[in-house]
Amino acid sequence: MTATERAENPFRDETVKKILAKYRLLWALDHAVALMGWDLETYMPRDGISDRSAAAEELEGLRHRLLLDPELGQLLREAEEKLDSLNVYERGVVRVLGREVRVAKAIPEELARREARVTSKATVVWREAKRKADFKLFKPYLEEIVEIQRRKAELLGYEDHPYDALLDIYEEGLRVRDLDALFSELVPATRRVLDRVLSGGFYPQRHPLEDESYDVDKARALMKRLLDDLDWPWSRGRLDESAHPFTMDLGIDDVRITVRYEGHDIKRAVYSLVHEYGHALYHLQIDRALARTPIAGGASMGVHESQSRFWENIVGRGPWFMRLLSERLREYMGVDAAPEELYRYVNTVRPDLIRVDADEVTYNLHIYLRYTLEKKLIEGSMTVDELPEAWDTMMEELLGIRPPSPREGVLQDIHWSHGSFGYFPTYTLGNVVAAMIWRRIWSDNPELLAGLDLARLREWLRERIHRWGATFPPKELVERSLGEQPSARALVEYLEWKYLELPGKLHEYLG
Amino acid sequence: MTATERAENPFRDETVKKILAKYRLLWALDHAVALMGWDLETYMPRDGISDRSAAAEELEGLRHRLLLDPELGQLLREAEEKLDSLNVYERGVVRVLGREVRVAKAIPEELARREARVTSKATVVWREAKRKADFKLFKPYLEEIVEIQRRKAELLGYEDHPYDALLDIYEEGLRVRDLDALFSELVPATRRVLDRVLSGGFYPQRHPLEDESYDVDKARALMKRLLDDLDWPWSRGRLDESAHPFTMDLGIDDVRITVRYEGHDIKRAVYSLVHEYGHALYHLQIDRALARTPIAGGASMGVHESQSRFWENIVGRGPWFMRLLSERLREYMGVDAAPEELYRYVNTVRPDLIRVDADEVTYNLHIYLRYTLEKKLIEGSMTVDELPEAWDTMMEELLGIRPPSPREGVLQDIHWSHGSFGYFPTYTLGNVVAAMIWRRIWSDNPELLAGLDLARLREWLRERIHRWGATFPPKELVERSLGEQPSARALVEYLEWKYLELPGKLHEYLG
Repeated sequence: MTATERAENPFRDETVKKILAKYRLLWALDHAVALMGWDLETYMPRDGISDRSAAAEELEGLRHRLLLDPELGQLLREAEEKLDSLNVYERGVVRVLGREVRVAKAIPEELARREARVTSKATVVWREAKRKADFKLFKPYLEEIVEIQRRKAELLGYEDHPYDALLDIYEEGLRVRDLDALFSELVPATRRVLDRVLSGGFYPQRHPLEDESYDVDKARALMKRLLDDLDWPWSRGRLDESAHPFTMDLGIDDVRITVRYEGHDIKRAVYSLVHEYGHALYHLQIDRALARTPIAGGASMGVHESQSRFWENIVGRGPWFMRLLSERLREYMGVDAAPEELYRYVNTVRPDLIRVDADEVTYNLHIYLRYTLEKKLIEGSMTVDELPEAWDTMMEELLGIRPPSPREGVLQDIHWSHGSFGYFPTYTLGNVVAAMIWRRIWSDNPELLAGLDLARLREWLRERIHRWGATFPPKELVERSLGEQPSARALVEYLEWKYLELPGKLHEYLG
Repeated sequence: MTATERAENPFRDETVKKILAKYRLLWALDHAVALMGWDLETYMPRDGISDRSAAAEELEGLRHRLLLDPELGQLLREAEEKLDSLNVYERGVVRVLGREVRVAKAIPEELARREARVTSKATVVWREAKRKADFKLFKPYLEEIVEIQRRKAELLGYEDHPYDALLDIYEEGLRVRDLDALFSELVPATRRVLDRVLSGGFYPQRHPLEDESYDVDKARALMKRLLDDLDWPWSRGRLDESAHPFTMDLGIDDVRITVRYEGHDIKRAVYSLVHEYGHALYHLQIDRALARTPIAGGASMGVHESQSRFWENIVGRGPWFMRLLSERLREYMGVDAAPEELYRYVNTVRPDLIRVDADEVTYNLHIYLRYTLEKKLIEGSMTVDELPEAWDTMMEELLGIRPPSPREGVLQDIHWSHGSFGYFPTYTLGNVVAAMIWRRIWSDNPELLAGLDLARLREWLRERIHRWGATFPPKELVERSLGEQPSARALVEYLEWKYLELPGKLHEYLG
């Protein structure tokens, strides 16, 4: 692991120093709440949930009150008035914390509590509705959640479209107009690539290795070895198991990822591991001088996802990764598959009803569907009643398949039950930024990928993206580090390169 | 696991209700800090320590400020004025939280911070001094720590002896006069029993099984099985591993114990497990109606230790436990030892320099030594300079052996580096109360022990001790549940019964 670079004495302004002193307790609370969340998903005994939820609610309430502290507000106003005299780090602190304070002020506690209450019940009901494939059970909850989101959008404010207000929560500065422009190019291009891949025959729709079961203990040893291959710093991070893999950042020197072992189709565990590694690496390479400040995190959900997707899809599913993977699968799992065979196994392409099982080519069509429907629900041009039919129809238009039941359709994702509207688009933004990184490296330093030079890849990402944390807003970070704004172009180029050109010259890159 | 009994609506007084509402955030902070402590000892990656310590310090600081909240103080004063109209639970809340507030008020923040700073360094230096067997390294730190304890005693106040103020922190109401009376009977009686055991030849000083190494994976399976034998409620608790075994209470439905595998002498891991089980059972059987209040914990350190010692020594090292243990050791570890042989293996008696390796007979002599020296340091009748020689001389008087170096003498325990003066005596108090429980059960319901009726043993402890939590001060709880005040008598009787009488009729009880 590369030593993280240290900005020289980044916080000098007296007002910012006072802000950071006040922030310290918020940071400690976030540290505690993060650990409580990690523990809940990994080791907490089942019946501990009730106390854990109650304690988290108390601490979240305290966090909310601390954000509304008038002294903090006054300090932020003072700092905002002299923004031009602050350096980029100081400005980052004022911007990120200012955003948090504004959201806390805009949403009355009564609404926040109502949302917490409804979503907590809705998540349970959603699970039951999905199991029974019965949208009716979930409908009243989703209706209330949509109503709350619409109210939040009005309270947060927006210029063009109410959905903008929700997008901005997850991705500072992201707007409907950006996404409309993005998808209007990406969707038709994706469908062109998909048609050619499906008729081309090189990338299989299914692979026999997908049906192979595996020994979980052996898989555990494999995952540790793969993390060793990626130079995982065990003194600064952990690997554990949870029902839904995630990354938890408890500080620059304590970053934890999880994986799930389903017992069959080993690539699912391998790529979920590499995905979380990408998220974790971002935290591990943030400049130490930013530790315990509001900018010691990722720039946005989209930029974060770009890192996980870059490692999962572009590094991990690239031809350059196949020799290593072939050796490891042989050694640990007894899988006997040559690099080219593995490449096909980990890059199947098929229209599928389920987003989380989607491949690189079809994935963004799933997001486009959700984006379109969310936008309509929030602007009020569609009711929750009309949602299931709209979902199925759009799925058929985009991928040519129709869900046999809501379980494989409108009820498949947990996000809406959590009240997360405006979140899905950051997945596609992540894919877009990952492709922009690919294009940049592939044009300037192709040997980093072709030669699987992991140390230089990490350093490339550290220098341009990771070390800055949330110093810059995501759009500015992308512009600075990659020289252009996110657009569909790089992602389309990447898909065309990998799915249309690469099959003809795969052996050049299998290492 | 027995369902815990529920007091009917225990908190009715409006003032107490307001106190409990205020306490809720303190409870949530304690929950978070407990989890942070558990994680630090079990799973935290090594380099996470710096952020963890910083976060814990912030949260402890906040806890301190919340205890000093004038509104809370006012509510407690109001409740104290109408104490006679409150029920026992309400009085317990006022008493326990009132104690915490009084300590927080008495110790100025500057002194608390100084103690935290010095002990944090001293713990590191103590480790080095112990490794090098060089008391000089540790001496200046211990001097400062003793000075701080003396100052704390003055600030906390006392009637008879400054050491009383420190004892009271760990054991509400415990005084030098109690301990002087206790030890004046216990020490000579113990030495009489010890002399007869050593000359009797039934209990060996060493046993060949102590030299046997074991497979750690097999031991892990054994520990799980033993917890199953003890009806451990896995949905409400965990077993993990740590360098120093401990119990952490995160709530009535989340109680976690740890064990350490040294790879040899399996009884060490087994009895450390049963010891922590005793602590954990106390938390698991507290009345649910007391959850998330100041009285949802043990009554005191001494009462807590009585529970761990009762399970470890009286249940687990008793003849009644040997058949089960023999079966499990055969099944899991391949150890072929009949119950009588095992009984001798787990009940060796030998004068040893190290407290944590001491047996039931000699253990309290180690505590008497520390108690005597602590009292002198705190009252100022001995200097830190004189401490090592005083230790060695007293050890020779009590056990007839002299430490070859401070490593096996004055530097063996971590407690003083933590600033824990007044803590050691609670270990002996725990042994005393455990023996009182033994005497009561052995006279009223001997079949609970003789028949190893674990369910009824748990119920006996739940009904008389556990369910009350910290409702009563420890002296009152012991008086209520066992009908008398702690004294050496029961412990002397127990030692005489087990070590002098039992050898002649062991086969009656081996099951």
